[in-house]
Parts: sequence; structure tokens; C-alpha cells
Amino acid sequence: MKIYTIGGYSEVGKNMTAVEIGNDIIIFDCGLHLPPIVELEEREKIMNEKSLRAIGAIPEDTILDSKNSRKKVRAILLSHAHLDHIGAVPYIAERYNAEILGTPFTLSVLGKIMSDNNNHIRNKIVAVSPNSSYIIKGEKNYKVDFINITHSTLQSSLIALHTPEGIVLYANDFKFDDTPILGKEPNYDMLRKIAKEGVKVLIVESLYAADERKTPSEKIARGLLEDVMLTTNNENAGMIVTTFSSHIARLKSIVDFGKKLGRKIIFVGRSLNKYVSSAHDVKLCPFIKNIELITYRKHVDSVFKRVNKNKSSYLIVCTGHQGEPGSILERISRNQTSLQLSPKDHVIFSSKTIPTEVNIANKGQMEKRLKNKGVRIFNEVHVSGHAGREDLRDFIEMMHPQHIIPAHGDLPKLSALTELASELGYKIGKSCHISQDLNIINL
Amino acid sequence: MKIYTIGGYSEVGKNMTAVEIGNDIIIFDCGLHLPPIVELEEREKIMNEKSLRAIGAIPEDTILDSKNSRKKVRAILLSHAHLDHIGAVPYIAERYNAEILGTPFTLSVLGKIMSDNNNHIRNKIVAVSPNSSYIIKGEKNYKVDFINITHSTLQSSLIALHTPEGIVLYANDFKFDDTPILGKEPNYDMLRKIAKEGVKVLIVESLYAADERKTPSEKIARGLLEDVMLTTNNENAGMIVTTFSSHIARLKSIVDFGKKLGRKIIFVGRSLNKYVSSAHDVKLCPFIKNIELITYRKHVDSVFKRVNKNKSSYLIVCTGHQGEPGSILERISRNQTSLQLSPKDHVIFSSKTIPTEVNIANKGQMEKRLKNKGVRIFNEVHVSGHAGREDLRDFIEMMHPQHIIPAHGDLPKLSALTELASELGYKIGKSCHISQDLNIINL
Amino acid sequence: MKIYTIGGYSEVGKNMTAVEIGNDIIIFDCGLHLPPIVELEEREKIMNEKSLRAIGAIPEDTILDSKNSRKKVRAILLSHAHLDHIGAVPYIAERYNAEILGTPFTLSVLGKIMSDNNNHIRNKIVAVSPNSSYIIKGEKNYKVDFINITHSTLQSSLIALHTPEGIVLYANDFKFDDTPILGKEPNYDMLRKIAKEGVKVLIVESLYAADERKTPSEKIARGLLEDVMLTTNNENAGMIVTTFSSHIARLKSIVDFGKKLGRKIIFVGRSLNKYVSSAHDVKLCPFIKNIELITYRKHVDSVFKRVNKNKSSYLIVCTGHQGEPGSILERISRNQTSLQLSPKDHVIFSSKTIPTEVNIANKGQMEKRLKNKGVRIFNEVHVSGHAGREDLRDFIEMMHPQHIIPAHGDLPKLSALTELASELGYKIGKSCHISQDLNIINL
Amino acid sequence: MKIYTIGGYSEVGKNMTAVEIGNDIIIFDCGLHLPPIVELEEREKIMNEKSLRAIGAIPEDTILDSKNSRKKVRAILLSHAHLDHIGAVPYIAERYNAEILGTPFTLSVLGKIMSDNNNHIRNKIVAVSPNSSYIIKGEKNYKVDFINITHSTLQSSLIALHTPEGIVLYANDFKFDDTPILGKEPNYDMLRKIAKEGVKVLIVESLYAADERKTPSEKIARGLLEDVMLTTNNENAGMIVTTFSSHIARLKSIVDFGKKLGRKIIFVGRSLNKYVSSAHDVKLCPFIKNIELITYRKHVDSVFKRVNKNKSSYLIVCTGHQGEPGSILERISRNQTSLQLSPKDHVIFSSKTIPTEVNIANKGQMEKRLKNKGVRIFNEVHVSGHAGREDLRDFIEMMHPQHIIPAHGDLPKLSALTELASELGYKIGKSCHISQDLNIINL
Repeated sequence: MKIYTIGGYSEVGKNMTAVEIGNDIIIFDCGLHLPPIVELEEREKIMNEKSLRAIGAIPEDTILDSKNSRKKVRAILLSHAHLDHIGAVPYIAERYNAEILGTPFTLSVLGKIMSDNNNHIRNKIVAVSPNSSYIIKGEKNYKVDFINITHSTLQSSLIALHTPEGIVLYANDFKFDDTPILGKEPNYDMLRKIAKEGVKVLIVESLYAADERKTPSEKIARGLLEDVMLTTNNENAGMIVTTFSSHIARLKSIVDFGKKLGRKIIFVGRSLNKYVSSAHDVKLCPFIKNIELITYRKHVDSVFKRVNKNKSSYLIVCTGHQGEPGSILERISRNQTSLQLSPKDHVIFSSKTIPTEVNIANKGQMEKRLKNKGVRIFNEVHVSGHAGREDLRDFIEMMHPQHIIPAHGDLPKLSALTELASELGYKIGKSCHISQDLNIINL
Repeated sequence: MKIYTIGGYSEVGKNMTAVEIGNDIIIFDCGLHLPPIVELEEREKIMNEKSLRAIGAIPEDTILDSKNSRKKVRAILLSHAHLDHIGAVPYIAERYNAEILGTPFTLSVLGKIMSDNNNHIRNKIVAVSPNSSYIIKGEKNYKVDFINITHSTLQSSLIALHTPEGIVLYANDFKFDDTPILGKEPNYDMLRKIAKEGVKVLIVESLYAADERKTPSEKIARGLLEDVMLTTNNENAGMIVTTFSSHIARLKSIVDFGKKLGRKIIFVGRSLNKYVSSAHDVKLCPFIKNIELITYRKHVDSVFKRVNKNKSSYLIVCTGHQGEPGSILERISRNQTSLQLSPKDHVIFSSKTIPTEVNIANKGQMEKRLKNKGVRIFNEVHVSGHAGREDLRDFIEMMHPQHIIPAHGDLPKLSALTELASELGYKIGKSCHISQDLNIINL
Repeated sequence: MKIYTIGGYSEVGKNMTAVEIGNDIIIFDCGLHLPPIVELEEREKIMNEKSLRAIGAIPEDTILDSKNSRKKVRAILLSHAHLDHIGAVPYIAERYNAEILGTPFTLSVLGKIMSDNNNHIRNKIVAVSPNSSYIIKGEKNYKVDFINITHSTLQSSLIALHTPEGIVLYANDFKFDDTPILGKEPNYDMLRKIAKEGVKVLIVESLYAADERKTPSEKIARGLLEDVMLTTNNENAGMIVTTFSSHIARLKSIVDFGKKLGRKIIFVGRSLNKYVSSAHDVKLCPFIKNIELITYRKHVDSVFKRVNKNKSSYLIVCTGHQGEPGSILERISRNQTSLQLSPKDHVIFSSKTIPTEVNIANKGQMEKRLKNKGVRIFNEVHVSGHAGREDLRDFIEMMHPQHIIPAHGDLPKLSALTELASELGYKIGKSCHISQDLNIINL
Repeated sequence: MKIYTIGGYSEVGKNMTAVEIGNDIIIFDCGLHLPPIVELEEREKIMNEKSLRAIGAIPEDTILDSKNSRKKVRAILLSHAHLDHIGAVPYIAERYNAEILGTPFTLSVLGKIMSDNNNHIRNKIVAVSPNSSYIIKGEKNYKVDFINITHSTLQSSLIALHTPEGIVLYANDFKFDDTPILGKEPNYDMLRKIAKEGVKVLIVESLYAADERKTPSEKIARGLLEDVMLTTNNENAGMIVTTFSSHIARLKSIVDFGKKLGRKIIFVGRSLNKYVSSAHDVKLCPFIKNIELITYRKHVDSVFKRVNKNKSSYLIVCTGHQGEPGSILERISRNQTSLQLSPKDHVIFSSKTIPTEVNIANKGQMEKRLKNKGVRIFNEVHVSGHAGREDLRDFIEMMHPQHIIPAHGDLPKLSALTELASELGYKIGKSCHISQDLNIINL
């Protein structure tokens, strides 16, 4: 068995891993590396394969060409709906005569991304329900299980690929959350069953492997939000909340507390629209009837003018938690919309600044502009969607794989998981395989 | 009106503030500065006034002598039961012909500290119930209100001193927590009433004035504990939790989850014994019947031998969250007790390392020793008991005092509150008075 | 005596301090706050008084109007040639019927800034040689001494203002450097003489008051440069050095080592041109004959094409050490000039990133682009031009002023100097006066 | 060829690497891991093999036993005189029938360490002059070159081991310094010659591989010292300098400036005595006639009493830069010697705190005690002795080895060098081998 660590092993982003067994290759994830795209200036944003490759924004999957392996690819399995896992599909999936598998929510989001950019791909697209399986046909047949797991978006999966040489378990982007607010709990039973069959290799995220903790449940984020929204002095103030657009459970909590405050709730921003509609498509958006969802940019200004007249009756939920140029909150901060902020209005970040230089600068400068208006800022009303070191320890001990490949990060992050694996008896170079982009591991 | 900022204005600790009106002086708090005591080696720990003064561990209240003001002191008002607020009482209270006021829990703790050290003081001691008042008699009469507030121990108070020249509001160590798990909520009504009467000067803590947030409720700490205690793999493991001994609400959560796990719960450590007994004395220890409280050090070893035989049936709650030399957890880590830790046993810190060099070293080295045994560490399962910048903003706006004196910290911390006050329209040197230890402010 | 702390007391930048004695006001410095200007997008860069005020880029000197004091202003004294000390002169000096004093180099730079922007001001401009004096005439007469001091540009001064109420010593931006490479040493004799006469109040920079050190001499920066330029493997590589354009001594060292390498040395960038020409004007640019100074932007490309043909024969000295958009190095990094960088070319930052969010982002992203080309980066080949805590201690002890006003920074920085003053026996609120922008101190 | 990465690959310390070719094994270095020893309390300091193994202070060389390889060991090559490279020799060298090779200074230090502890070993000890070679006899013969290199002690070596399968180049602890103040420059010619022959594998330190710089020369440290010692106000003050005892070049600079100040120079502390005597033994201590070297602890007090009478005539050079309990400076800070410090006395740390928790605490608390006496502190008057990323890049490009093994650090440090190797075209798992303690690499 050969494992190509194509993308996401030298950076956080553009995740892509390929497993070769004989004449068949199965790919896990196909994501974008967002920072170089965010760093582009507006006029430079040409999104096609060539320009994205030039700035290192899509996985260097041409390594498969050079090994004459492109034709072996049978399927692309998508773990969940985040762009660093699915965003490169529109640009490179057609290079492969391969079907694309994902849960219904993931595929709905993928569809909206593509219609947004007027992209079409000819690959066969197959929806796999959470906690169910599918048979991929190649030279041999391969069963894949999409095991439901909790993360910061809906219908995320750990994916088990059953091969003649053993099970490959792909576990990028997850946490163990028994009280996820929305969506199903982790399917521990299915995981234990797979562990019993024997996992040959576990490909597992390293993002927070250095953090000595169990990542808190989404219920904690809900509690933090409750404190900030219901127990501060906001009676006569405007209120804006911004969070990750794909985080439907979080949005549910925000709406719930907005209702308690008796405020009218308005969602503004393209990506919010996209993810909320997808959640509604798969019947996982219970709050859709409680919100006004602004779908066209041209409506934003008239809505904001209405809000201006009585700000304390509204709750605005919008994009812009990272200060992204062009996002709603960023435009508000620059007085580029008709919404007028006044001293003591609340701006709540139910999010964390993802620590790249461009985000820190964008967010920091947006915050300064907001503060110049006298606005109150509430930062990091948030918990992470990624497993901490102690979750990862529980996970590895539960699955006891033969081999571990730390994924989703640069060398320092991969090293942290390697250290954890060492503590659990794995040996670097023997049973724990530290890698980098464009490397091949032979098992 | 003169305000002597005696202690706690050049460091975090040894809080003491004196207010002089004509021929009367009222003192707020009388605490220890703990780091120099912690840094002493065992053999050097002589605790008397002279040696404590020599190492800077008690407030330099001799400033009152030099101003010939010692005899004017009428009362010492204690805000809550923490040592940095009451710990110097046994050493210096007798220098004053003054009565000592505090809530029942605070006074019970004070009593136990003194009997521990075989201290006796002749001052009159007066218990004031939370949310009630008392008249201090001097040249004039002074009403004082003990307003119930939430913090990381029981029966904490904001104290309003009514003087002919206006109200002095002393607000050291608090947060706004509407769901405190144990004890009463903040008395917002009483605060609003006092605000209406007009606050001349607000003495207010600065500890987290730089943190742009609302401090989360104790219910969040409870949620974090629940995740760590109930949703990690600990079925066959020993389990130790350590937290601040004075934090009775936290201890209640720990006991609640210990019971859910079906474990027998044992409390070990002198200071735990002290605070839990005091809580019981004032009928605020609902869980006392669910725990075994080891009161004598000599019993520890036999209890631990019993635990060794079946560690997964027990939950040990003990002292040592800062790695203090001689604390129970520290001694366990050094194999100085009979408790034997094995790989995968859980050690949960429901606390945060207070960032002094000696604590960082003590805790860090203890943790290393624990990890060498293969123990699993869960850090910072905790939320703070101190107000963040946004709580402080709400508070200042609610009380709209004429003057503000930032307290409880060194210059950088006091500066952060001063910046907040500036945002709210206060002027440095005019209505916001940045000070240092041993300074006098004339209003 | 009243001291208006107008600008530079709530931020690092837009320094301006006014001293009022009876009916006369003397102003020290009149600078810009650069970060809000850097943050503007290209199209927004309208540089006039109104727009600069709107973004907080010039001192809020209107406080003098409100006190009906504008007409009392007799003179504006400029300490040295940096923009945060002189940059607001073109925009607000004409509001005052006041003469402008500075050393020849400072005034030459001021002149070039104004002709660059097509600004003209009607104020009388008076050159004062380093280590000489001048009499300002108002209701009374005031002698001012421009005492030569070392800093990161030429002809910097500490300024002593002799008033009937005692001496005001203005000491913003300096270090004690007995081996300054270029320019005169500090005039310790004159300082000691002034100390003997008695300093009433010392206004002194706080920037590095928290750094427990003596700031190293410029000779150390020269040594660091020597190591990097002469002892790394650069024989066949292109070489770019970037540094602060106003730092003529540093530029001299760069040129010296460039000559040792036998490279042709080319200076590129508008601000380099400005400062180097000013240095030449005052006969303090010994290396001008050794360099090619590109004065027109249109020539840059043809020069770079020439360089491309044989990069290892050239040393490019250019602007862009903070990654400023539009600077030469930033444009090189974006392939917006004709210079082509190849792997192993050296880019040496003889500078430090000034820690604002926008700089960190600009520099960080520029560096990433450079690294993508395989270029080698040498960071922080630099020493600071500002006094450390131990220099400041020596200085305060040498001058033993009655009063100290910490300047040049926000509250945390001013606090650090206040702590130092406390160590030396000064009392906050009595003899050490912590302030903020737009405050008035009565002495 | 098998390479056993025995120690120094999971921590900074206890360096030990073994190379097996057929039936012969050659060991590089045999060091102690100091932090666990420093952390012991005084009464626990039993220094024998068993107790040192128990706390993880010596390399786990028993891995060679388990592979039945102990008897194959022919030689132990010592790169330089630091304890983390030679300190385990007294405890484990006798386990091998192997000769011990090092430069004269290294062996002199080793001898003094052993006589200090009353240790004797039966191994044959062979002095190899810098820049000369020796033939080790085993089943085959192996030439080894001790190539002179610069570091923070004298006579450091890169070691080239010539084997039938190619050259192994061991390069732990070095920098490239063309102006080393004392001792020879790096032997670039010999390195280039070896590169030409072809290096099969380079074992190279990673300590500062993440620092994007060229490490400055020792001449820079000399310049920093000159500034602090000659240009601060110290005429009437006592003066203490502390530095690494093994750093003879630094000690030379200190003595030179002490002489310029006209002060009598006294060296105090056991380890200073040891290293200075060793330097004298090999005729590399030119300043020995200018100092008074206190060799017996019992003399310290009488000397200090003499100093007390006229502190400003003396310069004390002593141990204690890390605040080590029992060191001279630490004892001074605790008033455990007769030396009396007064306000304004200078304490100069020509060193950096090695960032372990115990050092940070020891140093921090010592500093606090010194400051309580009013002493002036000058920190980090120092440059490192280890190569930065750009030195390492030059080095790797000069040697162009087939394989690289990053050494001297935990995984994050080894990762940093791996990233550099990737930039230079090496492939993880193929030509760059990341390892951990007790791993074996097959080439």
C-alpha cells in the first residue's frame, strides 16, 4: 500500500491524501489553501486551476501524473463541507475519471460553490448518508463507511476504507462531542466495530495535538453566548454577531438567544446564505423560520436602513469574523454599508482569529475601526471543533491502528501528534510516519 | 477625603486601602502578598509580623503611623475570604483599636486561619450578613453596606461606605455571574440604589481590565468539568481533581460529577478542610454528606493505601493545583505519599496557574513528574472569578462614580483600567487616579 | 507652568507637547501618527489637515484653541528629523504665529517633505546648530539649547528651555552612544551643566523603559552587518539591503561593506533620496561619491535591467523594510519591477519590524513572497536608537529633575518609565506625572 | 550502516549517537541531561549511574546491550568540553572496551570533572589536537578528523569519521565565527576537502534552525560588554559579571575591560576554577596573570570582606548566571556570603537564561532578590554559540551530504532543521531522517 501525502502535510489547508492499492487509487479530500487567496488583492482574484496552482492554493496532485497513476483514481471521498477539504474539487476533480462521494450536506454545499462560480464537473456524484456505506469499484472492490462524527459543521465523517490489505481510517477534522446542539453524536459503536476488525493505518489530524486538553463541547460555546447575549447591558444597543458561516449549530444558538431577547434576526452575507440553504436542503435548519435571510447583495442596504431606525430591535448575524475584505462586517466597519454603528453597540465574535498574518491584520484593523466608533467588542465567544491531545489519545487507544500518519498541519503540528504517538508506544519511522506534502509512504 | 493606597497597588496581593474623613479612618481589606511566602524555603517559614514585613508579604501600613493617623482607625472591612484580602489580619489588626467586619463565611475562615497558627487578636469581630448593613461609630457615624457579589468563593461583598462627603464603593474581586451554581446572585438592585444616591469614588479591581470579554459564568466551568469527567475514557483509571480550596461552588460540581461516576469521593489537604468546614459552618456546603473529609495528615496514608487497591472506585480531591511544595498533589508526584499513580490515571486541574515565576516552575516540574508516571493531565478546566473589561464597563456605567481608583495590580494592570475609564470619559489625574503602594490621593 | 501633553501620550507617534508660562507657549515637536496613514488604501491617501485629523494622524492641537491659547504660541522646537516629530508641521504650523527651530539636517528634511507635497508655510524658520542656543522672544525671553544627542538619525537634540520658573528639558528619542559611526557624540558636558543649574521638569521618552538593558551602540549594528555581508556565502548571489532611510550612519556602514565586497552600490527609493540628499546638504554624507542614487522613479527599471545581467556585482540599497505597499522591496517581491530575484539571493533587513498589526502583516507577506522565490532572508541586523531602562536610569540620575513626565507611548509604556522613576524616589502624582493625550499638567 | 540516535534526539541534552559498520561501533559524545539534576534538591544529589539513569540524566545506552552490540564499541569521540557532551563519560564509559578521544582542552576538563567526583575510568584516553587525525582500530580501521570549529568554549570540533561506506560528519554545537576573540577560526579548507571526498551522512545540530539569521560573532558580545562596562555610570559602584564558566573567550573580554576600568579582578566559583585551569593547562588562558582565582570555598568569605571595604576597586567574576542554587551569585543574593551589595551596584549577565522552567524560576527569583537590594541588572550581554538557520544553510550547501540527521533537540527543533533541509531539496524519510531517542536509522 502506498500513501501519497499530497496536500495538508506542509501547511494547514489544501488537504488531499491518496491511497494506492495495486491498480486502484482512492483519494481523501480535495481542498483549497485559503491564505494565499485571501492575500490576493481584489483585482487579482482570478479563480482557475492555473492561477490557483501558481499561488499554491490547490494540492499539487500532478505528482500522480508523474507516477503515471492518474488513471488509477477511482473515487474522491469528501469528509465534510469545509473549503480546505472540498474547495479544490471544482478545479481538479475532472482530471480524474472518478466518482465523488460525500454526505448530503457536504454535496449540497459543493453544488452551491460550483453554481456560484459557474463551474460544472462531469464526475459522478454520490451522496452517502451519515453512518452508511458504499462500494467503490476498481480492479478490486472497496467498501467505504462514512462514520458520523462531530465537528464545527454538519454531517462530518470519519471515513473507513476497507482494502484487501486492511482498513485505512481517515480522521481529519473532528472532535468528540456528546452534546452537539445540532446533528448526531459521534458513532462510537461503529468506530469500535472497525477497531475490532483491525485498522492498518490511521490518518489523523494534528492541529491541536499540542494542546493538553479535551476540547469542550459545543454546549460550552452555547453557554458562553448565553452569558454575553443575555447578561450584558444591551437593552438599548445594536447587536451584531459574526461566526463561521458553516457552523449551523452555533447559528442555532445565536438565533435561540436572539429570540429570547425579542429581537428580529437578520442573516446577511453570501456564505451564510450558502451554508444555511444547504442545511435547509437536508432538513437540518430548524431555525430558518425565525430568521430573515438576505439573499441578494442589493437588498442589504434597504434592510440596513430599516435597522438603523430601531437598532435595539434587531440582531444582525453576518459574515466577517476574520475581517475578510468585502465581508459584511468589514464593510460596515468602513462605512461602506448604510448601517450606522453607535457607541455601545455590541459586536460579538463567536469565532477565533485563525492565526495567519493576513487574518491578524485584517481582524485587528477592522476591530480598531469598530472601536473608533465606540462599539463594544466581545472576542472568542467560541470553542474549537478540533480534537485536543486528550481526545486524540482516547481515539488512538480506541482504534489501536498498526500505523499512524499525522495529518493536517506543518511539521511542528505533525510533530506534536508524533510525540503523542510515541507516548502510546509508536515508533517514528516504523509505525508513526511523519511526512510532508508530495511525499510517498510505503506500508 | 484622603485615600491611602497602602497595598495591592504595586503588585497583585496584600490588598489594603484606607479612607480618611476628618478624624476617622476606615480600612478596606488587610491581605498577604503570597509569592514571597511561597518562595521561602521550608526552614525559613517563620510567620510573624517582623519577618513578613522583611520580605514584603504584608501591607506597609506603617505609613499610617508616620502620618500620626493610626489612632483614627475605626474599622477594618473584609470583602471576602481570600488570603490576599484577609491574611494579614492576624499580624497587624491589633495595631488598631478597630473592629473587624466581614460576612459569616469570611469570618469563619479568618477564625480557622488564626487558630491554625495559634494567633489571637483582641479586636472586636462583627459578622455582617450578605446584603445587610452596619453602623461604624467614630467621630462621625458611617453606614456600611455589604452587597452580595459573585466571585470564586462564597459570601463575597462589594462594600459601600456612606460618608458625609459621599459614598466610597470598594469593589475588589468580583464578577457578574447570574448562574453561580452555589450562593446568591449579584445584588443589582442594591447597586442601582447606591448609584442613584451617587458614588463619590469607586475603588475597583484592574486584574483583567485588559481582557476584552465578559467573564463567563461558573456554569461554564461546570460544563467543562462535566465534559472532562464524564466523556473521557476513565473507567479503569484513578482520578484526581485539584482546585482552589476556597472555591466551594467548584467543589460542588466536582462532587456532583464524582457521584455520577459512582466513585467514592475523598477530600485531602489542610486548606480544603479549612474552607469546606467554614462553608459547612455557615450552612453552605450541601455536599458534605457525600464526601469523606480527611482532617488529620496522619490519616492520609492509610486512606491512600485503601485507594490503591481499587483506584477506579475513588475520586481524590486534593490541594496542589499550583504545585505548592508540601501540598498533597505535589507530594503524590514525588512518591512521598502511599498513593501509587499508574499510566492513564487522570489528573484534572480545575484551576489556572497563577503566573508568577515560582508557580510556573513548581507546577511545571510537578507536571513533568506526573507525566513521567504516564498520567494524563487535563489543564485549565476552569473559568476566572474576576470581571473582564466588558463587565467592568457595565459596572462603571451602572455606578457612574465621580472618581475612579484602579486597584489590585501593578502599574500595567492599573493602566488597563485607566484606559477603560478614559473610554468612558474619565480624565487621568482629574477623575481617574492611578496610584502605587504608599501613595495618598486627596479628593 | 502648564504642560499640555497634546500628542504621543496615548500612542507611539504624533508627538507634540506645549509648555505655557504666563502668556507664552513653546511647543516641542509636531509629528504625524503614521499607522493610520499606512493603513489607508492607495486611493484614499488624501493628505490634508482635515483628512489627517479625521483619521487621528495629526496631534489634536485644537485643545489650545479651546483654552484660548493659540495666540500665545511663540515657537515650535523640532528635536530631530523623524516624521513622528516633524511630519505635522506642513499641516498645522501655520495655525500659529510662531517661528520654527531645528538643526540644519532636520530643517533640510522638513524642506524636502514640504516641496514633495507642494506645501508652503509662512512661519519663520530658524536653523540652530547642534550644541548651540537661541533666544525666543515672547512676553518674556527664553533661551533654548539644542544639545547634541545620538539617535538613529543625524543631528538629534535634547532641548533645554530656560524659563523664569526653571528649565524644561525635552528628551524624546535618544540613546547614549559613545561610538556613533557618524555624527557627534552626546554632549555630556552641556547636560551636566544644565543639571547643575537645576531642571524643573524632564519630559522623557518611555519607549524602551521596560527593557532592562543599556541600548547597544551603533558600532554593534555595524559589526552585525559586517558578519552578514562579509562572512556568508554570497559570492554568486544578488544582494539587497533595506534599512530606515533616515539612518545615515547605518547607510554608511552598508556602503563600506558593499565596497569591501567590490560591488557597485545603488540606492533606490524616494525617501532614501530625500534623507541622503539632506545629509549631503549639511555635509554629513561622506559616502555619496561611492553610490549611484536613483532619483527618478522612471529610471528604476532601466537600472534594474542592468543589474539583472550581473546581479553579483551589485548591492541594492532600497526602501521597504516594513513591507510598505509601494516601496521598492515590496514591489520587487510582487514582480512589479524588472529586478528578478533568484534562489540564494540575499535580502538583509537592517531594521526591525515596528510592531503594529499592519506592519507585521505587510512585512510577513512580503517575506513569504520573497521566500517563495528561494531568497535568503536575514532579519534584525539592527540595534535600536532608543534608550533602554539602564540608560534612562543614568540619565535621570545625571539630570536629577524635580519633576518627570514620561512621554512617547501609550499608558503601558508610560507606566514602565513611571516604575523606573519610583525606583529612583519619584512619587506618582507628586513628582512623576503620568498623562494621556489632551491632558494638562500644572506644576 | 546503522545509526543509533541514543540521546539528545528527544530533548536538548545527554547527547549520544552511535554508528555501526559491520562489527564496529563508534560513539559520538556521551553527555548529561542537566535539567533533572538541577531540579533535584540538595539532599537528593547522589551522582551515580543508577540514580542518574532513574531521573533520565544519562543516555539510555542500554539499547546497545539489547542489540548485543555493546562489545562492538571501539571508541567514544568527544566533540567539545560541555557537560551535555562529555558529562556522562564518568558514569558509563567503562561499560565499553573503548578508547576515548578528544582535544586537549576537552580532556583536561573531563579529567577535572572526574577528580572532582573521585571518579576513575579504565578506558584509554587519547588527545587529538585540533585539525589533526587519528586511526581507530576495530574489525576495520577508521580515520577520524577533529576539525577545528568555533563555539562557546575552546577547541571544539566537527568530527569526520571515514568508513568504508563513506564519511559520517558529526556537527553538534558550533557556529561559524571568523573573529572568535580567542582560539582558532573554523577550518573551512578541511571541511571543503571532506565535502569533495563526499559526505554520506551529516549529523547536525538543530537548536537554532528556526532562527532566521546568521549567528553573530563573539566580537559582538565583546562590543556589548564594552558598552555596558565602559559607558555606564559605575565609577562608585560594585560590579559583578557572571557568564558561562567554560566560555574562555568571553572571560578574556571581561578581564580586558575590567583592566581598562582599573579594577582588581577576582574569579570566584568552582566551575570557573575548573575551566580556567584547564584553559591554562593547554596554554589558552592569556589573562590568568591578571586575575585572582579563588580556588577554595573557604577563602571566599575573607576575599569578599576585603572587597566590601572598597567595592568600586574590584570586579567580581562569578558563577550563577542561571540562578543555580549554591552558585556564588545565588548565595550573594541570599546574603549567604559576606559580600554586601548596595543600591547601584552593577550585576551583568553575560549570558542568556536557558529556557527551562527551573532556570526561569531560579534566575527570576535571584533577580528579584538582587533588585530588592537596589542593584542594577544588565541582562543578555551575550551572543549565542550555536549556528542560526542561515549558517546551517551555508554549511549544508558546503558539505552537500547524501543524508542528513537533525540532532540536538526535541521534535519541534529537529523539525525546524528538517524544514531547512526540505528547502535544500532533501526528502523526509528518504534523505532527511527525523528521529527520536532510542531509534535506529538504517542507511
